[in-house]
Amino acid sequence: MSELTESTEPAQAEPRSLLDRAAEATAGAQAPSGRARELDAADPLASLRDRFVLDDGVYLDGNSLGALPAGVPDRVADVVRRQWGELRIRSWGESGWWTAPERIGDRIAPLVGAAPGQIVVGDSTSVNVFKALVAAVRMAREAGRGDGAGADVRDEILIDASTFPTDGYIARSAARMTDCVLRPVLPHEVPGALGPRTAAVLLNHVDYRTGRLHDLPSLTAAVHAAGAYAVWDLCHSAGALPVGLDEHGVALAVGCTYKYLNGGPGSPAFLYVRAGLQDRFDSPLPGWNSHAEPFGMRPDYEPAKGAVRGRVGTPDILSLLALEAALDVWEGVSVEAVRAKSLALTDFFLECVAAHVPAGRVESVTPAEHERRGSQVALRCPDAGEVMRRLIERGVVGDFRHPDVLRFGFTPLYVSFADVERAARVLAEVLGES
Amino acid sequence: MSELTESTEPAQAEPRSLLDRAAEATAGAQAPSGRARELDAADPLASLRDRFVLDDGVYLDGNSLGALPAGVPDRVADVVRRQWGELRIRSWGESGWWTAPERIGDRIAPLVGAAPGQIVVGDSTSVNVFKALVAAVRMAREAGRGDGAGADVRDEILIDASTFPTDGYIARSAARMTDCVLRPVLPHEVPGALGPRTAAVLLNHVDYRTGRLHDLPSLTAAVHAAGAYAVWDLCHSAGALPVGLDEHGVALAVGCTYKYLNGGPGSPAFLYVRAGLQDRFDSPLPGWNSHAEPFGMRPDYEPAKGAVRGRVGTPDILSLLALEAALDVWEGVSVEAVRAKSLALTDFFLECVAAHVPAGRVESVTPAEHERRGSQVALRCPDAGEVMRRLIERGVVGDFRHPDVLRFGFTPLYVSFADVERAARVLAEVLGES
Repeated sequence: MSELTESTEPAQAEPRSLLDRAAEATAGAQAPSGRARELDAADPLASLRDRFVLDDGVYLDGNSLGALPAGVPDRVADVVRRQWGELRIRSWGESGWWTAPERIGDRIAPLVGAAPGQIVVGDSTSVNVFKALVAAVRMAREAGRGDGAGADVRDEILIDASTFPTDGYIARSAARMTDCVLRPVLPHEVPGALGPRTAAVLLNHVDYRTGRLHDLPSLTAAVHAAGAYAVWDLCHSAGALPVGLDEHGVALAVGCTYKYLNGGPGSPAFLYVRAGLQDRFDSPLPGWNSHAEPFGMRPDYEPAKGAVRGRVGTPDILSLLALEAALDVWEGVSVEAVRAKSLALTDFFLECVAAHVPAGRVESVTPAEHERRGSQVALRCPDAGEVMRRLIERGVVGDFRHPDVLRFGFTPLYVSFADVERAARVLAEVLGES
Repeated sequence: MSELTESTEPAQAEPRSLLDRAAEATAGAQAPSGRARELDAADPLASLRDRFVLDDGVYLDGNSLGALPAGVPDRVADVVRRQWGELRIRSWGESGWWTAPERIGDRIAPLVGAAPGQIVVGDSTSVNVFKALVAAVRMAREAGRGDGAGADVRDEILIDASTFPTDGYIARSAARMTDCVLRPVLPHEVPGALGPRTAAVLLNHVDYRTGRLHDLPSLTAAVHAAGAYAVWDLCHSAGALPVGLDEHGVALAVGCTYKYLNGGPGSPAFLYVRAGLQDRFDSPLPGWNSHAEPFGMRPDYEPAKGAVRGRVGTPDILSLLALEAALDVWEGVSVEAVRAKSLALTDFFLECVAAHVPAGRVESVTPAEHERRGSQVALRCPDAGEVMRRLIERGVVGDFRHPDVLRFGFTPLYVSFADVERAARVLAEVLGES
């Protein structure tokens, strides 16, 4: 799920002086080792860093807010000055505003293993979780009726007990409004918890705190075998690793676009509805943008065909078109190559931490096995809040998760092996002082 | 409610040649009459036009998409390049991103007659209608229980039968999810339709098609007297005329920001929850942004105090901060002065239409009485679609509403009396040719 860092809360943020900035620029700035240089030299994605606006620091918080893609500022300026300022209302047609949600959805589709026509972009992740979860319950009940089973059998929603909280809050509301009970279970407990009452299951592909990657193919299959529908939250996997939505038969998924997709602060989320299920997608937010004939001004609602059915109100054009420009950085880049580099980066970080940080000072809560690791490393450390504050002062930006987790996100498009090594060295410095 | 114009649908929009543009620039461009010049010379708001980016045409579609305020492009560029590009994640605190929804809500508050702390900005109008309407039903039932009445008595939602369609679609979903029936009635029929079963009433302050202004104070009082709650849709009144939310005891209201508030295409909507009712506002979309402790990452939901309770997910920063910059045009401007000019503009338009357009060729469906008129004039005309196409070709931009309405919106901040006269003359020209 979407989240920020505690260290960026207003109460905790302090304006920094130029002196602070100067101090940062030198911290941990010793030359990269031969090994880091070799890894960077052999990195096929190294040149992509030029597609972003970066500075001398090490930015390992792209799992919270992706860095600015270099092409975004000019595109946004054109949207504001020409499309809005000159064409005004005509831009809904002439500048492609009206179709932006599905057009940009089709740009995200290959990054999550989806054929075109199944993703729309718009609204926040929380709102999309609500749409998908309510629709999942309705589909499960509808399917149950088709099988001759009682219509009221499916009255339970399972929720990942370790989820980013908003998913849980929204799931509780979805349960309340569909007369379901909400049952929190850990992802590995899901197969054992499924039963004839299960309507829907809300799961995270990658845990926001630990960076653990859950087994999407087998969990999806188990949920479907039980006659329920899984909703996958891809916030921490979209743009970081192959998801394979179509391949693994996923029914419904949501994700945010401001982490590994670099869409900008609060950029709109996306909703995936599998093509074969779109006719049964019964949205709890049937706004005029999802109508079969949105300009017909008809009092009765007739849902559109296709992914458009997931739209609600007027799309947020500035943010949508900033995201569209941001997606240009993926030109010629395969998610498989991104995944390979991501694992190499996190492996190297763990290796550098082991080499530089005093033993026992931190403990990784991120799985060591590649097949269970997302694109971040979370280190447990009793004074994590203070440690992160000092890391940021020295130009290494990660974030802190209550109560004791240092979180470092690795965006392969712009993080180098030299960055990784420097982050570990600065971490060792900071930990050595306290 | 939020809406676009049919004439801007992709299928109907055609790229225009430079020749077309040259032709437009001359159409209807005869010198303004002495009367128009006098009215402009006496207009205390005339200089505000310089706060917008405009061209040689006449823009009467600000009731669909407000023109670009001149300060927006530089502000947006700063948000993108510096706040996102340089400060990145720290901007949540340092650049005031986190508090933008309520801060900008407080900027809108005086324009709709609300004290601070009652408005948040975020999500689309449709999504806010859903939040407000579900919350209204829950509040009415809660109040009913307090009175010792049965909890299930309140099971009916009244909806303006002439509403912009999305309100009706969303109201139907809200009714379905709260076990209510939805009953469409015309606004003037509401007092007679209220009863012990009425839980909530969704009303438009100004009708999107006819421009009719409904009687907010008396309708609100009638709804409350029946033990129900009214939700007011202010899309066509916010920024155009005094609303008086606090003064008239309104409980809940929503509105869009891209019409008379000039926030930009698809800019986020606002939600007003009366201070005294905020503790009872029980949102169907309780995302982490509305939590009492959003960074506590607590599995249980505890709603925040105040207007913040209306937030859902991560706020859409680019669009929000563009809106914030757009609101600067209100510096030193009173809504009362805007209303006075709005009525003068629409009076003058009707006068010019009567003077120039052949009698019987169009018929105004906008009430003549000031107290029942919003800030637009709608003219019925059998070939309205074709007429509007030709008006736009000649530089007079209004919009068309199916099946036979020409709609002209008058934004007092940037529309002049000379504009109004020219629009009527060009309309007469076009109608004289067909």
